[in-house]
Amino acid sequence: MRELMQIAHDANQAKRETAKLGTNDKNRGLLAIADALERHADEIIAANREDLTNGRENGLGDGLLDRLMLDAKRIADIAAGCRQVASLPDPVGETLWMRKTPSGLTIGQRRVPMGVIGIIYEARPNVTVDAAALCFKAGSACILRGGKEAFRSSMCLTRIMRGALAAEKLPENAINLVEDTSRETANQMMRLNGYLDVLIPRGGAGLIQAVVQNATVPVIETGTGNCHIYVDRSADLEMAKNILVNAKCQRISVCNAAESLLVHADVAEAFLPMAAQGLAPDGVKLHGCPRTQAILGGAVVPATDEDYGKEYLAYEISVKVVDSLDEAIGHINRYNTGHSECIVTRDYAASQRFLDEVDAAAVYVNASTRFTDGFEFGFGAEIGISTQKLHARGPMGLTALTSTKYVIYGNGQVR
Amino acid sequence: MRELMQIAHDANQAKRETAKLGTNDKNRGLLAIADALERHADEIIAANREDLTNGRENGLGDGLLDRLMLDAKRIADIAAGCRQVASLPDPVGETLWMRKTPSGLTIGQRRVPMGVIGIIYEARPNVTVDAAALCFKAGSACILRGGKEAFRSSMCLTRIMRGALAAEKLPENAINLVEDTSRETANQMMRLNGYLDVLIPRGGAGLIQAVVQNATVPVIETGTGNCHIYVDRSADLEMAKNILVNAKCQRISVCNAAESLLVHADVAEAFLPMAAQGLAPDGVKLHGCPRTQAILGGAVVPATDEDYGKEYLAYEISVKVVDSLDEAIGHINRYNTGHSECIVTRDYAASQRFLDEVDAAAVYVNASTRFTDGFEFGFGAEIGISTQKLHARGPMGLTALTSTKYVIYGNGQVR
Repeated sequence: MRELMQIAHDANQAKRETAKLGTNDKNRGLLAIADALERHADEIIAANREDLTNGRENGLGDGLLDRLMLDAKRIADIAAGCRQVASLPDPVGETLWMRKTPSGLTIGQRRVPMGVIGIIYEARPNVTVDAAALCFKAGSACILRGGKEAFRSSMCLTRIMRGALAAEKLPENAINLVEDTSRETANQMMRLNGYLDVLIPRGGAGLIQAVVQNATVPVIETGTGNCHIYVDRSADLEMAKNILVNAKCQRISVCNAAESLLVHADVAEAFLPMAAQGLAPDGVKLHGCPRTQAILGGAVVPATDEDYGKEYLAYEISVKVVDSLDEAIGHINRYNTGHSECIVTRDYAASQRFLDEVDAAAVYVNASTRFTDGFEFGFGAEIGISTQKLHARGPMGLTALTSTKYVIYGNGQVR
Repeated sequence: MRELMQIAHDANQAKRETAKLGTNDKNRGLLAIADALERHADEIIAANREDLTNGRENGLGDGLLDRLMLDAKRIADIAAGCRQVASLPDPVGETLWMRKTPSGLTIGQRRVPMGVIGIIYEARPNVTVDAAALCFKAGSACILRGGKEAFRSSMCLTRIMRGALAAEKLPENAINLVEDTSRETANQMMRLNGYLDVLIPRGGAGLIQAVVQNATVPVIETGTGNCHIYVDRSADLEMAKNILVNAKCQRISVCNAAESLLVHADVAEAFLPMAAQGLAPDGVKLHGCPRTQAILGGAVVPATDEDYGKEYLAYEISVKVVDSLDEAIGHINRYNTGHSECIVTRDYAASQRFLDEVDAAAVYVNASTRFTDGFEFGFGAEIGISTQKLHARGPMGLTALTSTKYVIYGNGQVR
């Protein structure tokens, strides 16, 4: 077993070589990884089967077991993901600007690799490859720490990826998996100052908070989404219903799903029955304010303050009738998690105020919050969705995994 | 006294108003602050005198007392700084890009205020105004926590700034000073998740490390600079001497001053005596490797491993003879703090490799590291110099104090 400090050391050696690789070399590595994963599919499935057996014995739920499961089709999808990352533009090396200063220096800002990127995630083996491929394309080494329930699968995938790089004479230590799955080692990883340039947690609220609270290395907080749909007094109610039903029900387990509905009082009596009808086929449970209860009657349970702050990730939604756009914006800015927010309106001024004043990574007029996604935004890939304001906010593509440096050309200047 | 939590709450109220201010309103506030500071100069000087008296009684060194001292000239300079910030372009509101996606959404990335910015700094009252002005111009509220030795001065400056904003009907709670100067309150400030969008420490290595180690809010690590001058085999030695002397001696207490000299073996015998002679007028103490000692003789003390990693901030420098560009780059990447590094060379390939491979915020060919500075880089201002790779790297101007949001215009799109 490679100890964490050995991995940290190896990754910091490898980051120099990885940073120097040209785009063609990096793409060659990614394509070799994709081929190797498909070639070794049986080996991966065998390792995965052990994880699944253990998981069942330890009482893992069906949802977790499904996320953990790998078969030939899923492995082919993972390999296709690597090939797709290879096809993306290289974010490294771009000069963002360059100019002559009054002192005669030529100063430019150049996009460079981050260095060593840490990713802590749950028992989803596909993230092991996904994250490694993105970090490699961005010119960085990575240290991955996945959920222990998927350890055999992730270890097998990592061994195959490292082997593919080594066979191509590329730095295998660019891809590293933490082999000790204890909580102490995870905590140690969060404090690898000097070895980790950034740590990105991917997973549920518990994992993310553990990283935010314990890490001393720079962190990008991702993910939890208490997303609102606000139906303005001037909304096209049919459009509002479609957006609400899509944002709530199309996929309930994701961070860009709607968790709260706000309705302007002027349209509450007309819209709330439409909303309830739209959400009924999926059996969505409504947690409503007193006015919502008065309009919709007994099927609505009372909404508590806690409900308004909750990311249900389930067929549940909080509902509140508001008297004004101001109240809607105030409510959202109080309870949201800075992820994705939507207004449905036909009013120009309301749309502009909502875009300006709602504090979130993505603010929508007349579209489902479900579009908050690196692929939908045109980044070609996504390492996660940042809900902090530092460095990257919203869906993070390859450029979010880079840093910059200033390069300065002089001819003897002194101050 | 306003308790920290009260301040955090007030700042978070004020950030909404501050974010909405137009450029003219923000500039009006900054000019009002500048005028008020000059108008109340006597009051500031009186408060500062108390700090100075206390400082002398508590045995503060001359350097610290000098940094603490305010007189009419310095107050005028501080006011001029506010007016200069008012003259800078507003970083907020710029749309970095906007495009139509395949699903027909129009998505744009817009620069927005950070929200609430925390600054922890030492006993330099000028930073109180400087930081407040930059945060205000960037559309954010700030929470300032200055060194307790300057508390009366900072409190007086803050009262005047808040009064000037209030008189202009602008949100006075955009500018806040932590009034409890205990260490516990500083630690509490570092953990104000949900209230502070970023915390920037400005000061010495001890302060910065305390923040990095204790903070759970996002931090931008600033400042310490173990900067190298590498004199390549092909260097113009006269130019190298000028750059070395400037980088080491022009101002020793700053983070972009040189702390280490590397010399290619081929030119060591020619250059080291020139270097010693150039550094002699300032009495610079040389900590040299054995080869440096052999060339320069008894005046050189042996360099330890610790010396190579040291930010002296004094008339001292470590010196090492290296056999190759590779060794120079390897040494720098091992010992530097990611700040500013310089090669002096006439060799094209060496210059390109140094720019590519040295891992630092600013990498120079043939110019003094002393140029790493927001004003010299053309940003018009500087809140500090980031030595981390996340969010901002190198000198940070107004845009480093902003975030972005995605604004999405749809017409009913769902997934």
